[in-house]
Parts: sequence; C-alpha cells; structure tokens
Amino acid sequence: MSQANLPLAPGSAIGILGGGQLGRMLALAAARLGFDVVVLERQADSPAGRTAARLIVADYADEAALAELASLTGLVTYEFENVPAASVAWLAEHGVEVAPGPRALAVAQDRFEEKSFLNAHGAPTVAFAPARTPQEAQQALAAIGVPALMKTRREGYDGKGQRWVEHAADAAAAFEALGGVPVIVEAAAEFVRELSVIAARGRDGATAVYPLAENHHEGGVLRRSIAPARVSQALTDQAERIAARVLAGLDYVGVIGIELFEMADGRLLVNEIAPRVHNTGHWTQDGCEVDQFEQHIRAVAGWPLGPTHAIAHVEMLNLLGEEADAWAKYAAEPETRIHLYGKRLAKPGRKMGHVNRVRPL
Amino acid sequence: MSQANLPLAPGSAIGILGGGQLGRMLALAAARLGFDVVVLERQADSPAGRTAARLIVADYADEAALAELASLTGLVTYEFENVPAASVAWLAEHGVEVAPGPRALAVAQDRFEEKSFLNAHGAPTVAFAPARTPQEAQQALAAIGVPALMKTRREGYDGKGQRWVEHAADAAAAFEALGGVPVIVEAAAEFVRELSVIAARGRDGATAVYPLAENHHEGGVLRRSIAPARVSQALTDQAERIAARVLAGLDYVGVIGIELFEMADGRLLVNEIAPRVHNTGHWTQDGCEVDQFEQHIRAVAGWPLGPTHAIAHVEMLNLLGEEADAWAKYAAEPETRIHLYGKRLAKPGRKMGHVNRVRPL
Repeated sequence: MSQANLPLAPGSAIGILGGGQLGRMLALAAARLGFDVVVLERQADSPAGRTAARLIVADYADEAALAELASLTGLVTYEFENVPAASVAWLAEHGVEVAPGPRALAVAQDRFEEKSFLNAHGAPTVAFAPARTPQEAQQALAAIGVPALMKTRREGYDGKGQRWVEHAADAAAAFEALGGVPVIVEAAAEFVRELSVIAARGRDGATAVYPLAENHHEGGVLRRSIAPARVSQALTDQAERIAARVLAGLDYVGVIGIELFEMADGRLLVNEIAPRVHNTGHWTQDGCEVDQFEQHIRAVAGWPLGPTHAIAHVEMLNLLGEEADAWAKYAAEPETRIHLYGKRLAKPGRKMGHVNRVRPL
Repeated sequence: MSQANLPLAPGSAIGILGGGQLGRMLALAAARLGFDVVVLERQADSPAGRTAARLIVADYADEAALAELASLTGLVTYEFENVPAASVAWLAEHGVEVAPGPRALAVAQDRFEEKSFLNAHGAPTVAFAPARTPQEAQQALAAIGVPALMKTRREGYDGKGQRWVEHAADAAAAFEALGGVPVIVEAAAEFVRELSVIAARGRDGATAVYPLAENHHEGGVLRRSIAPARVSQALTDQAERIAARVLAGLDYVGVIGIELFEMADGRLLVNEIAPRVHNTGHWTQDGCEVDQFEQHIRAVAGWPLGPTHAIAHVEMLNLLGEEADAWAKYAAEPETRIHLYGKRLAKPGRKMGHVNRVRPL
C-alpha cells in the first residue's frame, strides 16, 4: 500500500475515478506536471483511459480494483460527484488520500443536503423543501408555491431527474414520474443571468478564484460560456465571498464549480455546487495561465495554487453530438482553440468537445 | 492496413516513433485535438508511452512492430531525426503516410548532406568539407583552416560526436578519436548570438513561422531560450526567408527547428536543422496560442496551421539532471509554468523537464 507524501513529487502516480472528458483533461494536465495517471473506469475504452499511464477497468465499487488502485497510488481524485461514498471510504481506510474529501462528496450527492449546507454557511439559495412521499411532495409544493422545480435528491445531471410543476395538484404525479424516490422541491429562480465561479483551495487552506463566467444553457445542458463575464465589482465580491464560505465550510481541497443565479435585485443565489472541475471552467484552458485542470492537480497534490487572472476573453462553445463533425470549420478559425474528447459515438446532445474562441483582453 | 484519409479526422490514431519528452508533448497535444496516439518505442516505460493510447515496445527496425503500427494508424510522425530510413520506407511501402517525409530525414541524418542542401537552397552556412579517411581529414582541415569543428556525419546530438581541432596536424588524430567514421569539417562560426526559428509547413504548402528565440548552450546542451528574441525586422525577414527556402526545398510537412548563428555583420548562418519539434520551441507552450506541438500535429494531420504570434515574453529554462528536484521552488513562482517529462532517472545533464517563465508582452 502506498501513502501519499505531500506535496506529491513529480513522477508519482495520481489516481482518477472516472474516464470521461474531465478525467481526460485532468490526466493531460497531470502529465504535463510530470505525474503518472491511473484511471479507474467501467469502460475498457474511454476518453481518459486513452491518455492514462495505467487503466483499471472495473466498477467503482469493486474492492479488488480499489485495492489495485491503492497499490499504485496514495492519492486519488475524481471527475464526477457520483462516486460511491463507500469507495471513497474504502480508499481512505486503506491509507489513500482522497481529495476532495468525503464531506464535499456527501453534500454534493444530495440536493437537500447541498442546499441545507449552503444556507447554513451563508450562501443563499432559492427556497426549498424535501419530500419522501406523494403527501410530502404536496406539502412541499404548498409551502414553496408554483411554478416549482422538483428534483430527485440524488443522481441526475444535465437536466436529467427533474421536472417543472406548474400546478399544486400535480405534485403527487410529478413525484411518481421521478420514480417515487426522495426529492427536493425548489422555488423557481427568476434570475436575470446564469453565472458561475470556479474556485480552488489548497491543502494549506489558500484559495484562488477565477473570474466569473456567464453561462447559457439549453434543455438543461450548457451550450456556451463567456468569460470573464461583464460583472460589477460588487457582484465579483459577492461571488468570491460565497466561494470562500463554501470552500471553508467543506474544508475543501481541489477545484470546485459553483453555479450562480444573478437576481434582478443584484443578489447571487447558489444554484448548485460541483466538487470537481466544471464545464463552465473550460474557458480557463485558453484564458488563463493555469487552467482549472492543472489547478485541481496542484491543489490535490499539495502544490501551491497557480494564478487565476484572465489573460484573454474567451467564448466557450460546447460541441454536442454531431456538432463535433464541424471540427474542420473550427480548425480553420485562427481565433479558435479546439478541445476534443475522443468519444467514439456522437449521440445527440452528448458532449463531444468544446472550442474556446479567444480574443485579446 | 489503414490508410490516412487527410485531413485526418479527430478520433483517428496517429503514430509516433520515439517515446521521449518530445513524443510525450506531441502525444498530449494530439490528445487535446481528439486523436488517439500510438507510440513505438524501445523502452517498456517511457515518457511518451505513459501518455499514449497504445504502446508498441520494439526496435524501430522491427518489421512486426511496424506492421502492428501500420494496422493501427495510417499516419506516422517521429520525435527524433535518427529514425532508420528503412523503417520509414517500409511504412511508406505499406500505405502509411509518414511526415515529415524521407527527404527531410535523409538530409537531417547526414551533416554533409544537410549543409550541402542548405547551400544549394540559398541558406548560408559556415564553410565545410567532408572526409572519409585520415588523409581526407587533413585535406579538409587545410581547406577550412583552424580552429575547425570536426563532426561525425551521422548520429550525435547535444554536443556528442564532435570535437574541436586547433592545429592542422591534429586532423588525423581527431578523425580517429571520432571513431574513424565519415566526418564533416566545419569552419568555426564567430557568431555574436545563437538564435533559432521554429517554422511549420502544412500539406497545402502554407507556412507559419514563430518569432525567433535567442538560445544559450552550455557544453553543447541548451540551457535557456528567450523569446521573442530582440531582433531587428531585417533579421526576422532573413530568418523567415531561410525558413521558407528550407521548408520548400524539402517539400516539408510538419514543424522544423532551424538553429541559426547571428554573425557580427548581421548575416544569419544556419547551424543545423531538426525535422521535428525542437527544444528551442518549448517557449511556445506558454507564449503562443498554438504551440509547436499542436502545430506539428495540425500540419501532419493535414489541418490548417494555427497562429504563431507571441502572446507573452517567455524565458525557457531546461531542467537538467537533479535540477528538476527544485520543482517545488518553481511551483511556488506565480510566473512560472512547469513541464516535466516523467523520466525515472535524473542522470547528470539529462533533460528532465523545463520551465517557462512568462511575463506580459
């Protein structure tokens, strides 16, 4: 069993749970810093697996696979928040440092815990109420009012596992339609803009915050980010205060993505937090000296954090499904930097890559 | 047998001969563009092998290995100029596109061919003469004068395979000391500065040239580059003219490194050319929007070339041997970007990594 000697020296191995595009871009950043990457992923052929020094193909809950991972590296991180808590606990019990830690995972895996944590730490959200039965769903809806957004407490991403409820009478039906699992009912946020802030916290407690991004979603999926967003200093201060509270409240290590609603009255509400590198932070690859991927590796490895100021304006466009077939068009644009994930199948809506259109500050 | 369909679509595989740091940085750039990388390398554990989707461990001349490579990819490039010509010919005969092509390799593998090619294409060099026997060595030295630099025509890098001859009477002894192999005798270049230019040529014949770098060597090994170098427009024009002639003369595809001597009278002489990405181009990773590694992949894949203008001043420092142990110092410098190669053994003088110290233009 290896144990992480922090700060982790180049040449050491870092484990990544998850083989998707975020894992791939983390692996590329880690390799640049001289680390070896070990990916644990269910699929034999995956975006991150193809860039890793070692690949373990297994379920995240497979103890033999976790033991193999622990034999190869003393430090593990992950690319998505639905890593089984039991796997993280198993690794920790076997001397492996996992970052971000179990508290961040627990909070991020349950939307009720998440909003409760946020409010308790001075990070405002919309009003919300939990429900475990059709009756509770009706009560929650009565308390929150309509229209409201009903979401499963666990799982779900990119707009999956949620539905709008327009009439109080539809509460029980919506609850059943979401599978009869525990849900959270959220008040509709009448936001004027969706923003996000990508922040990092090192093992020494130092924090670094990137400029805000302005985000545009379609059907629950991010289409486009513009960064640095045009925001007042007051809004930036508010976002940085929220980031500081969230990072400290979770005793966090790594990069976090915090999605924000900008309200008409100038307040920021937290929509959700993701304890990992984040799609709305992809602009940092071409807009900052140290991008969110290297920053995350630096943080979990116990290195000092890097600079986060913008060196360019960036418009980040996600390439969904067959949109990635237009790679030749983007390759011909001098201002466009291309990031493709090597996914084999361009299913509709699937994130195949992104481009950063860069222009001088 | 696969055949390259150019421009090569993302998701395709690209082969790289050689598993060192240049192969590693090429592999990372290719992965960013969505390609799979197949590395052919003699060592089972290598810097590039650990970042590739597939690794074939074999000698470059191993036909079974070349056949495996050809079954996986229709497009192959290389990270160093001493790839056996026979291997490249074998791949070409079996339908694999190899870039840069055999002419560039042949010229770069033989210092006499190289200088002859350069002079024939209007790219000036120091005076030189070939020798195959001790007698010819004496004659060459008599023609060139002393001091002169005697170099083996083939092999040799980073100052290896060469020696200064101070007295005409030492010609035969120097010839024997270099192994009795064919040599070239070069006049001493009384240069005021060492510069280099990194250039690229696409499959459509389009070219792109990066700003010049100023280079400082110690014991034949590059220590430090500063880019963009402070040079007059006339010097830049001269370098770009040389690059254009060399690229066209070789019908080149890919990135080339051209080392230059700046003479007291303002002329540029070509010291040597390297048909590959080049140590003096590492500054482009943090000083340009598209670095030499992505540029090379773009060129060989038949993509349009990317922009080459500088977006920052960069001082590139090679980390040799144990100097890489100072990674923590460099990690703490906000202006310093770190690139480490994952080499296991820090032998004295071995290139373990480099740092780019960046400052705004």
